[in-house]
Amino acid sequence: MTSVYLDNNATTRVDIRVAEAMLPTLTEVFGNPSSLHAFGAVAKAAVAAAREDVRALIGAAHADEIVFTSGGTESDALAILGALGSATSGRTEIVISVVEHPAVRRLCQSLQKTRGLVLHEIPVDGHGRLDRAAYAAALSARTALVSIMWANNETGTVFPVADLAAAAKTAGALFHTDAVQAVGRLPVGVAERMIDLLSLSGHKLHAPKGVGALYVRRGVRLAAQTSGGSQERGRRAGTENVPGIVALGAACALAAERIASDTPRIAALRDTLETGLLARVAGARVLGDSESRVANTTSIAFAAVESEAVVRLLDRHGIAVSSGSACAAGSVEPSHVVRAMGVPEDFARGVVRFSLSRETTAAEIDRVLAVVPAVIGELRADRFEPAA
Amino acid sequence: MTSVYLDNNATTRVDIRVAEAMLPTLTEVFGNPSSLHAFGAVAKAAVAAAREDVRALIGAAHADEIVFTSGGTESDALAILGALGSATSGRTEIVISVVEHPAVRRLCQSLQKTRGLVLHEIPVDGHGRLDRAAYAAALSARTALVSIMWANNETGTVFPVADLAAAAKTAGALFHTDAVQAVGRLPVGVAERMIDLLSLSGHKLHAPKGVGALYVRRGVRLAAQTSGGSQERGRRAGTENVPGIVALGAACALAAERIASDTPRIAALRDTLETGLLARVAGARVLGDSESRVANTTSIAFAAVESEAVVRLLDRHGIAVSSGSACAAGSVEPSHVVRAMGVPEDFARGVVRFSLSRETTAAEIDRVLAVVPAVIGELRADRFEPAA
Ligand SMILES: Cc1ncc(COP(=O)(O)O)c(C=O)c1O
Ligand SMILES: Cc1ncc(COP(=O)(O)O)c(C=O)c1O
Repeated sequence: MTSVYLDNNATTRVDIRVAEAMLPTLTEVFGNPSSLHAFGAVAKAAVAAAREDVRALIGAAHADEIVFTSGGTESDALAILGALGSATSGRTEIVISVVEHPAVRRLCQSLQKTRGLVLHEIPVDGHGRLDRAAYAAALSARTALVSIMWANNETGTVFPVADLAAAAKTAGALFHTDAVQAVGRLPVGVAERMIDLLSLSGHKLHAPKGVGALYVRRGVRLAAQTSGGSQERGRRAGTENVPGIVALGAACALAAERIASDTPRIAALRDTLETGLLARVAGARVLGDSESRVANTTSIAFAAVESEAVVRLLDRHGIAVSSGSACAAGSVEPSHVVRAMGVPEDFARGVVRFSLSRETTAAEIDRVLAVVPAVIGELRADRFEPAA
Repeated sequence: MTSVYLDNNATTRVDIRVAEAMLPTLTEVFGNPSSLHAFGAVAKAAVAAAREDVRALIGAAHADEIVFTSGGTESDALAILGALGSATSGRTEIVISVVEHPAVRRLCQSLQKTRGLVLHEIPVDGHGRLDRAAYAAALSARTALVSIMWANNETGTVFPVADLAAAAKTAGALFHTDAVQAVGRLPVGVAERMIDLLSLSGHKLHAPKGVGALYVRRGVRLAAQTSGGSQERGRRAGTENVPGIVALGAACALAAERIASDTPRIAALRDTLETGLLARVAGARVLGDSESRVANTTSIAFAAVESEAVVRLLDRHGIAVSSGSACAAGSVEPSHVVRAMGVPEDFARGVVRFSLSRETTAAEIDRVLAVVPAVIGELRADRFEPAA
């Protein structure tokens, strides 16, 4: 059985060209970039070249605005803690959306508890769109930092970050965006927009896990969150992950080259999948903002099934997708994102996320369209018909 | 010109077998270990197997005592901040050696400043050996944590961690050791010794950069330092670096297999190098404790030269070594380790570290023995003879 991987928002396959770019850094260009000798110099140059590729993809003005990290979670933490660590006194409030990834949301919630910061969690509507009035009302001369994601990982909903950043700037606050699900999927362009800090993660754009980056606009003061060596110009201690960084650079170069042609093709496949499923399965609805979504994601709520059962049964058919719920101690709870959108109870437990990539083929979508309706039907039958 | 790499304390070449073990995790076993489907399950199993290999190498009792991190610096920070975060009240003091790596020393110094913790930095003698009386005197019912490295990165001096840990335990304090330069080079065996926390880093034992681990003895309460997903049983948030983790596991398995046979061979090569240099170069002395050193390291202070010049000139001969000094804004300052040992001024600026690995050959050592005396002679001549 060949399998179909539609869980690219969880992680992506490393592109073979990215793996090939990475390989020499393991056994040949293996020096420590801090070393004074040739082995060090070559490694240092490889890191510099990768930094330039990341800069180019996100449209930053300067390569030294890129800080390499161990992934999206670390980038988010460095942005938030680093910005708060150098915030001017009197600015003690943070504004986030209620649908942020736990890397942002849990961190901010814990800061509220431990440091007494005031946290505003801006609600979203039934389509996952930010409540703009509540956002405007939350901003003030007390706001230190706004952190609103570029694209939501569960629904793909894209937030109007340029507008949100402009409003934050007017209030004198720093603007951070978790763009982990956006970079490589849509043009970000940090220099034109008024974005101060942007997080990205390699493994969501066909680079390996364990590497990420934080964009820090020149002039933004960032308090380092690590102690030790003075790597990354003192902003992130620890020997540079040269293989990961080189791979991330290669993945960014590839994304820059392909994004314009890939995006419409991926969107068309996603739309075929989405319309096909809605036509074939009764009691199904799409979550998120269909007017403003990343091209690769559709999140569908199926009534009268449990998403985890759908995921497991599709897995037996070789189809990999993910559920919009977290299983804790046996009970399946809808995710905070599904809850925040106010999805009705019977649909809320049946949210399945299909996330495509540039590797997804039309044949795979056909296969999914053939299997999913049967699987949903089977699960609903189990549920409503008493066992023999 | 074939080059000779004797800077293995800075970083090591990834073993080809480690690279081969890692490769499938990029393009085949690429799932997110948290995913419910087969792609996730295979990745999860790979991480579990690697955890077992790390456990076995360091002699831990349970695989769940291993937490994967992004490297030695993060492991050190997680150990120190994590232990302090759950220290009982009244325990507000930290004890370290004065020769700790900046990942430990700078962190503790900053904690002293920002959190008002009392920091004891225990001195070392001229051979880099810990002042045991000062150590005993520093321990008390106020000690929260001791952090003493297993082996020093600059001199290779091995500290008597089992004894130091026992004393810490008697005082009711937790004992952490930065074993980044020890793991894979000598048998650690954390379960028998009374070690609570141990840091290691992949790139010092032929695994890639960007991955490390922290051993946390069962029963030790560790406050997580990251917010986000609940990876690593809630102790380290962020998608697991599956390629790095699998590579680290493979490197540990390889080290476990080879350490007994490699160590005497490496020590013999190192001794040949060391005695050869002392015999051929006047005004040279070995730093560190020759009674208690890792097998791969010799740190030699040459009078009347600047170490950085030695490193650069050797580099032109294709020999990669490192200097025991940090160059800041043009002035070469002896490292804090060299300073702490009270090395006389004329020697202190000429410290060169040669660090071998299991890949080092006798022919390479011969080559170094032929080149170094000439290089030192040349530099001394430049220094003492006026330019024509
Ligand atoms: C929106 C978002 N932010 C942050 C992260 C965390 O990134 P990482 O797993 O690389 O730490 C993820 C992915 O898990 C994500 O989807
Ligand atoms: C003793 C010691 N501790 C910690 C580190 C830091 O490890 P990493 O570079 O993996 O963060 C190093 C190496 O640089 C080291 O030699």
